[in-house]
Amino acid sequence: MATEPDRLARPASTSRRALLRSGLTLGAAALGGRAAAQGNPANQPPNVPDWSKYLGDGVAVRAYGKPSQHEAHVIRRDVEWLTASRESSVSFTPLHALDGVITPNGLCFERHHAGIAEIDPADYRLVLHGLVDKPLIFTLEDLKRFPRVNRAYFCECAANSGMEWRGAQLNGCQYTHGMVHCVMYTGVPLKLLLQEAGLRPAAKWLLLEGGDAAAMTRSLPLEKALDDALVAYRMNGEMLRPENGYPARIVLPGWEANMWIKWLRRIEVGDEPWHTREETSKYTDLLEKGKARRFTFVMDAKSVITSPSPQAPLNHKRGFTVLSGLAWSGRGKVERVDVSLDGGRNWQTAQLDGPVWDKALTRFYYELDWDGRELLLQSRALDETGYVQPTKSKVRRHRGVNSIYHNNGIQTWHVKSNGEVENVEVA
Amino acid sequence: MATEPDRLARPASTSRRALLRSGLTLGAAALGGRAAAQGNPANQPPNVPDWSKYLGDGVAVRAYGKPSQHEAHVIRRDVEWLTASRESSVSFTPLHALDGVITPNGLCFERHHAGIAEIDPADYRLVLHGLVDKPLIFTLEDLKRFPRVNRAYFCECAANSGMEWRGAQLNGCQYTHGMVHCVMYTGVPLKLLLQEAGLRPAAKWLLLEGGDAAAMTRSLPLEKALDDALVAYRMNGEMLRPENGYPARIVLPGWEANMWIKWLRRIEVGDEPWHTREETSKYTDLLEKGKARRFTFVMDAKSVITSPSPQAPLNHKRGFTVLSGLAWSGRGKVERVDVSLDGGRNWQTAQLDGPVWDKALTRFYYELDWDGRELLLQSRALDETGYVQPTKSKVRRHRGVNSIYHNNGIQTWHVKSNGEVENVEVA
Repeated sequence: MATEPDRLARPASTSRRALLRSGLTLGAAALGGRAAAQGNPANQPPNVPDWSKYLGDGVAVRAYGKPSQHEAHVIRRDVEWLTASRESSVSFTPLHALDGVITPNGLCFERHHAGIAEIDPADYRLVLHGLVDKPLIFTLEDLKRFPRVNRAYFCECAANSGMEWRGAQLNGCQYTHGMVHCVMYTGVPLKLLLQEAGLRPAAKWLLLEGGDAAAMTRSLPLEKALDDALVAYRMNGEMLRPENGYPARIVLPGWEANMWIKWLRRIEVGDEPWHTREETSKYTDLLEKGKARRFTFVMDAKSVITSPSPQAPLNHKRGFTVLSGLAWSGRGKVERVDVSLDGGRNWQTAQLDGPVWDKALTRFYYELDWDGRELLLQSRALDETGYVQPTKSKVRRHRGVNSIYHNNGIQTWHVKSNGEVENVEVA
Repeated sequence: MATEPDRLARPASTSRRALLRSGLTLGAAALGGRAAAQGNPANQPPNVPDWSKYLGDGVAVRAYGKPSQHEAHVIRRDVEWLTASRESSVSFTPLHALDGVITPNGLCFERHHAGIAEIDPADYRLVLHGLVDKPLIFTLEDLKRFPRVNRAYFCECAANSGMEWRGAQLNGCQYTHGMVHCVMYTGVPLKLLLQEAGLRPAAKWLLLEGGDAAAMTRSLPLEKALDDALVAYRMNGEMLRPENGYPARIVLPGWEANMWIKWLRRIEVGDEPWHTREETSKYTDLLEKGKARRFTFVMDAKSVITSPSPQAPLNHKRGFTVLSGLAWSGRGKVERVDVSLDGGRNWQTAQLDGPVWDKALTRFYYELDWDGRELLLQSRALDETGYVQPTKSKVRRHRGVNSIYHNNGIQTWHVKSNGEVENVEVA
């Protein structure tokens, strides 16, 4: 078949017919403007670009693949002034540049307390001791012989959105909400390992210890350990990445990521919590009058619009567009997500798409015919327990502004008439 | 908490209690032997390894992450003698080294006909013309403005297992079955693009054309295009990888991967198929007497045990172990998977774990107490239509051995008493 130059030379445009059915219009003028602004305007079919003329790289040139060079901007980023060192710091998932519900392994946020432990799997050992009938030491091969399960869960740092407690600060959802990711884990139910060792009657708490130089330690109620906790060694099919705990980490569905001990080295069974540094001076929620809430394990329902957002503006996109975002709840499935265009005065129901898993990121979309008017975009998540994501004002009324943890208040993006987007707060 | 040297110094072992409940035993002696053979035997807790003593790399040192250096063997591999050039060749997914149902993007098999087209997304154009009311040219930004969906599907080359038509040849499931992967796609339903252009009444077939130097072209029945076909631009959340069609490809759930045109450049609407090279001299199924079946789009139900397999032997693993494998069907969901230890004489039902999606890879497990006896391992998939994966003999009886496509016969692995595994056939 030859191409048909006279017909193909028409400028890019999209008919309004199908989109009009839902009452939405796609701005043809804006489309034309955008097309001309992109790349080489002369490269319109039936032009044959170079990549259609010459052989490309062959197979297995990259035996382990990586993204296109044109996606080099889609990376984890840190914020230099947030932390004193990169070894005890955080890098954020570029949520604004992703879609769907699975986070690719190379882009999962990092939070380390003493840098990335680089573990030789042959030398890896996991100790299980304390109030058990028989203390055990597992090699990685031992763990891999156990029955295992595959489950997708969100993993969110308790400090996610922590810089927003005192007002809108960071201009991009990568920074305000990017301490969350969602992958499909493969792991051994922790319950099976505890059964192997045999729990003594007094057993009530576990100490989880990491193999990194910070020896991260957190206390875990036995009930959670026997419920859905995993000793995971794979994410999205392949072995865990070093920065995510290779070769094995704890997965605690719905609970704060600080407890998901990476480079897991030791599990001790005891009869009470250990009151480690990470559950006393850190990872507690300081309230208004100096009192602190402790053991606030569960991550409550939360959501954020990822596109548009400050790093993914609406520039030149008048007409039909699809708002997109993520919602999640540590208490179960996301039941519904609402979207507001006017800072929370009016709400419409968004559409959920893709898997709606228990305690996992859930994707929502909202179709919009944008006429260039300013917007105050918000989203709010409702989970299957009936819990509704609160406003930031409500969170502050209940808990003050002294904490950096567990801020699940509703985020507002100000879309300007030129399509730029800014992090703001509404009263 | 101090560690307890006197208790932790015990050699690695795992009690039999929990596993005995299911009538299975974990060989403690074998475990001890294995543990001693691994890494540095002196590195037993409470030894403190170096990685627990020193700071590791900080955050964003790898802004886009990659696997541990200790996983460098988990890569796509090609077979040099299979093809004359690497530009028109295949590299295989290392199924034996993965678990779960999601394939990580870096390990999805490749099949190119003229190498990898390296496309600048700003210059990308998709032409839609032929029997439509209004021919259209889409930029990538145009495609991203459309409503989109997130769906996980297997993608299998019609030639997967093609070298096995004339007998067991390739010694590893990476090579016998590794032309399949499964990712979560984000894409525009093709139906929406066709609605934008407006189909004329005579429209019955589409021509899909790739932007690579091979200009891969296939004919697609309109019915499938209006059903579940996608123009996908993302896999597992991020943009498609160059080797998988960046920035946009066709996704045809359940149909042979050759039709999933990568680097999609043109869609022409017509009233009959085009009879391209890829559906006449190639990708047709040559039968016994010289006749060929054409347009055999659907990939029928299939399965393979991925562990143990020739590249993932059972060496030193007497006692409790979990057999693991993948099953899939182009006609719907996998309903059940059976496993045989004796070459198909007796069958037991395996356990499915993780999501059981329509037209996607499905993970199965089968628990085994291996006493070192020789095994002839097989798996067979049954899909929701009632279709049962056939034996290789049955496939050959019906279709001869002249084809290289659509071999979904039952695979046999011979497990020797030393744990080595070999690709064999049973009568």
